Amino acid sequence: RWRGSIYKLLYREFLIFVGLYFIISVTYSSGPIYFYLLFLLGFYVTLVVSRWWAQYESIPWLDRLMCLVSSNVHGTDERGRMIRRTLMRYASISGVLILRSISTAVYKRFPTLQHVVNAGFMTPSERMKFDAISSPHNKFWIPCVWFANLAVTARTEGRIRDSVVLTLILKELNSLRTQCGRLFGYDWISIPLVYTQVVTVAVYSFFLACLIGRQFLDPEKGYPGHELDLYVPVFTLLQFFFYAGWLKVAEQLINPFGQDDDDFETNWLIDRNFQVSLLAVDEMHQNLPPLEKDIYWN
Amino acid sequence: RWRGSIYKLLYREFLIFVGLYFIISVTYSSGPIYFYLLFLLGFYVTLVVSRWWAQYESIPWLDRLMCLVSSNVHGTDERGRMIRRTLMRYASISGVLILRSISTAVYKRFPTLQHVVNAGFMTPSERMKFDAISSPHNKFWIPCVWFANLAVTARTEGRIRDSVVLTLILKELNSLRTQCGRLFGYDWISIPLVYTQVVTVAVYSFFLACLIGRQFLDPEKGYPGHELDLYVPVFTLLQFFFYAGWLKVAEQLINPFGQDDDDFETNWLIDRNFQVSLLAVDEMHQNLPPLEKDIYWN
Amino acid sequence: RWRGSIYKLLYREFLIFVGLYFIISVTYSSGPIYFYLLFLLGFYVTLVVSRWWAQYESIPWLDRLMCLVSSNVHGTDERGRMIRRTLMRYASISGVLILRSISTAVYKRFPTLQHVVNAGFMTPSERMKFDAISSPHNKFWIPCVWFANLAVTARTEGRIRDSVVLTLILKELNSLRTQCGRLFGYDWISIPLVYTQVVTVAVYSFFLACLIGRQFLDPEKGYPGHELDLYVPVFTLLQFFFYAGWLKVAEQLINPFGQDDDDFETNWLIDRNFQVSLLAVDEMHQNLPPLEKDIYWN
Amino acid sequence: RWRGSIYKLLYREFLIFVGLYFIISVTYSSGPIYFYLLFLLGFYVTLVVSRWWAQYESIPWLDRLMCLVSSNVHGTDERGRMIRRTLMRYASISGVLILRSISTAVYKRFPTLQHVVNAGFMTPSERMKFDAISSPHNKFWIPCVWFANLAVTARTEGRIRDSVVLTLILKELNSLRTQCGRLFGYDWISIPLVYTQVVTVAVYSFFLACLIGRQFLDPEKGYPGHELDLYVPVFTLLQFFFYAGWLKVAEQLINPFGQDDDDFETNWLIDRNFQVSLLAVDEMHQNLPPLEKDIYWN
Amino acid sequence: RWRGSIYKLLYREFLIFVGLYFIISVTYSSGPIYFYLLFLLGFYVTLVVSRWWAQYESIPWLDRLMCLVSSNVHGTDERGRMIRRTLMRYASISGVLILRSISTAVYKRFPTLQHVVNAGFMTPSERMKFDAISSPHNKFWIPCVWFANLAVTARTEGRIRDSVVLTLILKELNSLRTQCGRLFGYDWISIPLVYTQVVTVAVYSFFLACLIGRQFLDPEKGYPGHELDLYVPVFTLLQFFFYAGWLKVAEQLINPFGQDDDDFETNWLIDRNFQVSLLAVDEMHQNLPPLEKDIYWN
Repeated sequence: RWRGSIYKLLYREFLIFVGLYFIISVTYSSGPIYFYLLFLLGFYVTLVVSRWWAQYESIPWLDRLMCLVSSNVHGTDERGRMIRRTLMRYASISGVLILRSISTAVYKRFPTLQHVVNAGFMTPSERMKFDAISSPHNKFWIPCVWFANLAVTARTEGRIRDSVVLTLILKELNSLRTQCGRLFGYDWISIPLVYTQVVTVAVYSFFLACLIGRQFLDPEKGYPGHELDLYVPVFTLLQFFFYAGWLKVAEQLINPFGQDDDDFETNWLIDRNFQVSLLAVDEMHQNLPPLEKDIYWN
Repeated sequence: RWRGSIYKLLYREFLIFVGLYFIISVTYSSGPIYFYLLFLLGFYVTLVVSRWWAQYESIPWLDRLMCLVSSNVHGTDERGRMIRRTLMRYASISGVLILRSISTAVYKRFPTLQHVVNAGFMTPSERMKFDAISSPHNKFWIPCVWFANLAVTARTEGRIRDSVVLTLILKELNSLRTQCGRLFGYDWISIPLVYTQVVTVAVYSFFLACLIGRQFLDPEKGYPGHELDLYVPVFTLLQFFFYAGWLKVAEQLINPFGQDDDDFETNWLIDRNFQVSLLAVDEMHQNLPPLEKDIYWN
Repeated sequence: RWRGSIYKLLYREFLIFVGLYFIISVTYSSGPIYFYLLFLLGFYVTLVVSRWWAQYESIPWLDRLMCLVSSNVHGTDERGRMIRRTLMRYASISGVLILRSISTAVYKRFPTLQHVVNAGFMTPSERMKFDAISSPHNKFWIPCVWFANLAVTARTEGRIRDSVVLTLILKELNSLRTQCGRLFGYDWISIPLVYTQVVTVAVYSFFLACLIGRQFLDPEKGYPGHELDLYVPVFTLLQFFFYAGWLKVAEQLINPFGQDDDDFETNWLIDRNFQVSLLAVDEMHQNLPPLEKDIYWN
Repeated sequence: RWRGSIYKLLYREFLIFVGLYFIISVTYSSGPIYFYLLFLLGFYVTLVVSRWWAQYESIPWLDRLMCLVSSNVHGTDERGRMIRRTLMRYASISGVLILRSISTAVYKRFPTLQHVVNAGFMTPSERMKFDAISSPHNKFWIPCVWFANLAVTARTEGRIRDSVVLTLILKELNSLRTQCGRLFGYDWISIPLVYTQVVTVAVYSFFLACLIGRQFLDPEKGYPGHELDLYVPVFTLLQFFFYAGWLKVAEQLINPFGQDDDDFETNWLIDRNFQVSLLAVDEMHQNLPPLEKDIYWN
Repeated sequence: RWRGSIYKLLYREFLIFVGLYFIISVTYSSGPIYFYLLFLLGFYVTLVVSRWWAQYESIPWLDRLMCLVSSNVHGTDERGRMIRRTLMRYASISGVLILRSISTAVYKRFPTLQHVVNAGFMTPSERMKFDAISSPHNKFWIPCVWFANLAVTARTEGRIRDSVVLTLILKELNSLRTQCGRLFGYDWISIPLVYTQVVTVAVYSFFLACLIGRQFLDPEKGYPGHELDLYVPVFTLLQFFFYAGWLKVAEQLINPFGQDDDDFETNWLIDRNFQVSLLAVDEMHQNLPPLEKDIYWN
């Protein structure tokens, strides 16, 4: 990409500088390049690691919500069960939709909305309703609105006892919504391309320059410290290993929603959340072990 | 600007030091300048990046508010619809007004309040009311006060069922207000001019000094490590590329509300928020898909 | 100050070391001093900048509170207006009192409590009540207690409809109180004197050592890299400029409540908050633009 | 492990580079390796320390919850006592279950669920219920759902006076749940293996290279600064001590839930929480010291 | 201490390395030691400073709680006054107890519980009740449980109007409890001993090595940059001053609850909180200045 890239930003200054430089023909040592790389990598990796963890913390878990729905949406009849299950499904759909749009692993699993329906997250009639709402933007917010409206319906029917409990559930939903929004934000506004390009170009051009540039050095001159490396370039190899290794750390973490070994297992998470939350709101609703005196009673 | 700039702060010490120095005529090597640049750039870029992301996180999204308004402001009659739409419009106006005052892209789109009216965010009578409130300060808080008063009116009319729900909505409004205030703060209190000036002057003077100063070096002397660069100044060019590239990262991020390729797409965001929130509170109000048993029912 | 200063902490070790050293008479190069300065300045400036911004974020704004008071403290009669205005004045006084005790600019404007009265923030009878409460400690918390009691009175009179709304207002007051407490804390517990002294002494002694020490160097010896600087000490001047500039950044930010160009404009803020909040709770109370259909109605 | 390790990620680039390098046979100095280690260690240790403290802050304490249960779940009869004790036991079980899955010390103490029952945290009938819920995932969330349902039961029986108090208790439970979830997250998503491997390999290969590589240096040549170390390698020993010491800091903190001297004493914490919370909700329920005038009464 | 110290962790590797090293007898320069110190100190001081400020922010202030108690616990009769005063005393006792266990200054003032009684924080009958609760753990949580129970009693008596207000007070108490718990945590889990030892040993061994090692250097050889220092070791002295100064910063901040000049004045704080909170809840309860029109009324 030319737009927004470092090449576009710098090419004018670069050309001027190159011109001036070839005229003046001044040379300089390459030593500080090392330190440059170290600093650049250090600050860059720190930034990437903090974003990586913030992304993990933004993944929506349904446990808090399911505790509230399980205990506060009353009714052991069929409609009661249906409302509880539907509420949790709506919350799950929001998570699936946002993860579909940022994670390649989830997208592969659900390439179309029909796959979401087939996997049981959505019913066909919900899908129709969903498609009927025309908006050019990402529609992950729709199930949230449904959730809120259904919760209020349950309140009107008396299944949620009063507004205090209702607001607790709505607040919890809103914090799920905020997490989804954060995931969207981390995907939408990535680390500026310029930064990543500077780091990558710096590391690779350093290696290239090493490989090419060394041929100009005359080993006969015996620069101090170069004796050992002449026979076995052990330090240079180590250096390559470490610089490239640090860069790989950043490359792995910069998009943790891919399909690599170290990426977050989002598909597992979606299934775990869906399964556990249905269990909690359905089977476990008002299904308590008998109250007993514990062994330290007196 | 002379006031608050580094020139004003330092010129006296500078002159004294220059005077003393020319008398003593002591020379020193230029090596540490490199490291100085690295440190300065590293800490400065880190600061800029953290402010940049904090600014992104301060942009108000209306999704949380619209869930609450959609589900809790009752009434499918015309007045009910009008109240819900007006509430969301008020929240939108606050966002537009604050973004107008900090983002050149949004300001270009809405150079006057009339443009806000024409775009449908404000009605003409609202504009009259708005103009009637005379205050020399930024008036982005006015729609927030309207919102709060209108919400209480809806509560009095019984369209918001009780105070618990009302406070939930008012809290949500207040966190939008806080986000607007943060955006205002990032714009009002920028990174101290001195800091930015030191960094910029450091980088550019370094390049200037390189270009000029090299002519005093006699390439015949064969300083170690300078052989290669005599013919192809590849390392110096790379260095230029990296230092300037890092500085460009900071320059791009320091004001993310401009019109560059990498800036936040605030105009898109305003439209998205407005469109989606009207959709959520109007068409989707109590318009739920039918409750059905999901495929894992038993 | 001797107490708590670095001189007191270190003089014994210092004397011992000086003694040993003059006996052994070993010399060492001055190169690493550069790096020392860089590190020290880098970490110190980062600390100062983060405190500086945290102080900005602790300045109390009244916008959130005024939205709540404007919409939820009912009554368009004189007493209703008076209660709303008085509540906002109480919140303002707390801000003025805490800013008076930390900001020289605000202190100059309000050298005595009488000036606060004259400026209209306090009534004379409030001042009498205020003076009657004898406490040796900063009394900025008194208007907060008044606010809470007045809000409860309004609740008892039915002007605040119910306790839910009352608690929302009290919470908001408490977060203002927390911000005031933070400002107090940043003023009370400054960055340890030792840290600031080490940094300042380091930078200035470095320059002094440069000026004095250079006379011992014999320019005839032609140390590598010193040729250029002999004629024009351009790098040393730049170095001075950058080190001192970075230190100035810290010095400017370490107390942002002074009267310098770059300090926070606290007096403007006090006036803005007072004026805007009275406007919001009085003129704008239940004074809404007419509800209309917006241009996207259907 | 081959999957996800740095060896897998880099072996191709490594082989290419090695090949090229042996052909070109260029040597280079080993100096910058030092700095590389410093940077790498500095950033890595900072990351590890911040995770270590975040893990401490995620350990669930029951004090906040027990204050609420003690004062707000009424009834001095046997059933009242049983409900309060059972609520606190449920909260304790959640903590025990999550700590069992991340801490080797706690796992050793409770290798099976039966040990949890024997220690009095769980009753046998609760264990049966627990086992009856079949889920392939970690089941630490089950007691949370029980807690929520039991709290609602207490509300229905009138032992919790109203929904406002109920929501306060449920919110508190949810923040315990969040803490458990964070502990789970820190265990599940560890610092990327690549990062840890790069750091460890860097430090140890540095020492190995030192030991082997030095034999190629001819001490007769008298490189500057090497005189002293020839007789007593004091600086090299110190260096070893410091580099390895810093690495040990990271190794100790990277998993603070082990059985080392410096690890968190999780078993003590579990007992303390259980004992104190039963005390607070049972003996201390509505068991207040008599109200008296304090010595500053007038 | 041998357990958990760096000596225990490293002695095996150390001995092996020493053995190998004396056999191979390879020397190396001492230069990088400088940088090592800089890095180590920089990262360590940053960690210490952030913990130091977090500890300040964890000190409990009673201002927020006293506003709520003053305005919401009704009754101007003796029992009402007594309840309000007792509530604030309970909150004070919790603070005193936790500070006693972490601050030497507070411990000196209150060596036994009887001193707390004598100072008027506790009544004798409260002390009896306190002692009657047998627990091997720190008992600072007991007054919190009393507070919660007393607040509920006040609610039952109608002195706290409804549960909404009650929960606000209980939440505030819980955040005080959290602050106390954080103070406890910072005291219990200190910075790992290994880290502190590495830093301290590094700095002091550096100075020792300087003093001893220099005697092997032959000043006749005239290493570049050593001319000046031969006569006046000004740079070395400055270096000592700065390294040791930076370490002292860390040593001062690592335990801010001692009796040094720069430590937090916890005893003053305890008195201030106790005095101010009694004033606020007793004399100032519903004791407002008369409502008046302010000078900007129209």
